[in-house]
Amino acid sequence: MDADQIQTNAEFSSAERDAVYRCIFNRRDVRGQFLPDPIPDDVLARILRAAHHAPSVGFMQPWDFIVVRDAQIKRKLRDAFQTAHLEAAEMFRDEQRETYRSLKLEGIVEAPIGVCVTCDRSRTGPVVIGRTHQPEMDLYSAVCAVQNLWLAARAENIGVGWVSIIRHRDVQTVLGIPQRIRPIAYLCMGYVSHFFRRPELETAGWLPRTPLGDVLWIDRWRARAESDPLYEHV
Amino acid sequence: MDADQIQTNAEFSSAERDAVYRCIFNRRDVRGQFLPDPIPDDVLARILRAAHHAPSVGFMQPWDFIVVRDAQIKRKLRDAFQTAHLEAAEMFRDEQRETYRSLKLEGIVEAPIGVCVTCDRSRTGPVVIGRTHQPEMDLYSAVCAVQNLWLAARAENIGVGWVSIIRHRDVQTVLGIPQRIRPIAYLCMGYVSHFFRRPELETAGWLPRTPLGDVLWIDRWRARAESDPLYEHV
Repeated sequence: MDADQIQTNAEFSSAERDAVYRCIFNRRDVRGQFLPDPIPDDVLARILRAAHHAPSVGFMQPWDFIVVRDAQIKRKLRDAFQTAHLEAAEMFRDEQRETYRSLKLEGIVEAPIGVCVTCDRSRTGPVVIGRTHQPEMDLYSAVCAVQNLWLAARAENIGVGWVSIIRHRDVQTVLGIPQRIRPIAYLCMGYVSHFFRRPELETAGWLPRTPLGDVLWIDRWRARAESDPLYEHV
Repeated sequence: MDADQIQTNAEFSSAERDAVYRCIFNRRDVRGQFLPDPIPDDVLARILRAAHHAPSVGFMQPWDFIVVRDAQIKRKLRDAFQTAHLEAAEMFRDEQRETYRSLKLEGIVEAPIGVCVTCDRSRTGPVVIGRTHQPEMDLYSAVCAVQNLWLAARAENIGVGWVSIIRHRDVQTVLGIPQRIRPIAYLCMGYVSHFFRRPELETAGWLPRTPLGDVLWIDRWRARAESDPLYEHV
């Protein structure tokens, strides 16, 4: 092993650590606060590079990134959202349906940039290290790229919203994505008027934040040693 | 909308931004460099809190976290890895098989802490905002929690390795996880002797890093405007 293969000055300072946590805790799913200000290409390139440096199973890097700038393409995607959104509303009952209808759930047309992250499941061939027993790992790698993109954007003071109320086949049709390529996420990106403190669904009273201690177990499912000091810190 | 719902001092400085990028680019999948030093509970709690603040579809927070400290449980998981690993080796041919066998692909027993991240697909009921047309979104939410955990750990100078060469049903059996709960990731965590500069599979010559420009498109699949200035920055 050569010394030059090892990270030098690898230690993170507490200030750097705090910046990472600040990014994680202040990342929001943005729908209604996009500004029309363009994202400079060097900034967008940095964010995409962060996505591209996600972990990937067997280093297969199964993703592609389609940057959507065209207004007409955005409108077609917004129409596809709208179709799914109307269908979705019918699945909720009574009061929930009214609340659902009142929520702003996408900013496809307003956001200056869209990014579609995809997964090519056959990239690098049929046998991939780490995918032999968990074939979904390529999809999960692409999701890690999404989360990297989201956090990098927040650190660039840019908001991101993940649009999942849309059919994959509509995204494929509008963007010309072949059947064999799986869309993972359609993301709206742009500078914002403000970031909310808390997730909008939490503020709207849709669901509360689960206490971390309620989903944390020691050594076995649903097992906890009440005496375990870890619980004092969560 | 109340002013107290909005993030104040929301702007990230360039130093904070650089810390986030440093974390993203210096995160590694750690297998062979774990030290036995214990992770303090307050540090582990911070990392788990970061995971818990991942985005989740419809704010369903579908994850649980099982912290594995017990040496016997770790050995059982390592045995389950070993079974899958021997099977996996048979799937590669000739030279690749020799390379595969030479790779260190997990640190289950050496790492002081294991964390199993799971997904409860029925949490919060049958209809979830954002999952009506993409039912896999709950799994993807749990993967976002994994990536948050991984980055938070790096910022705490702690290494993480994702073990995917293992059968889900073995993980379920060893950890007592019910059939209806999906294991998403088994993660090894601990302080490390060093972090490598590059992914080990890249260094080993298994696969190269794909140039970002080769997976970046404008407005449509595999479409690029050569004149698009974005390509000058990647």
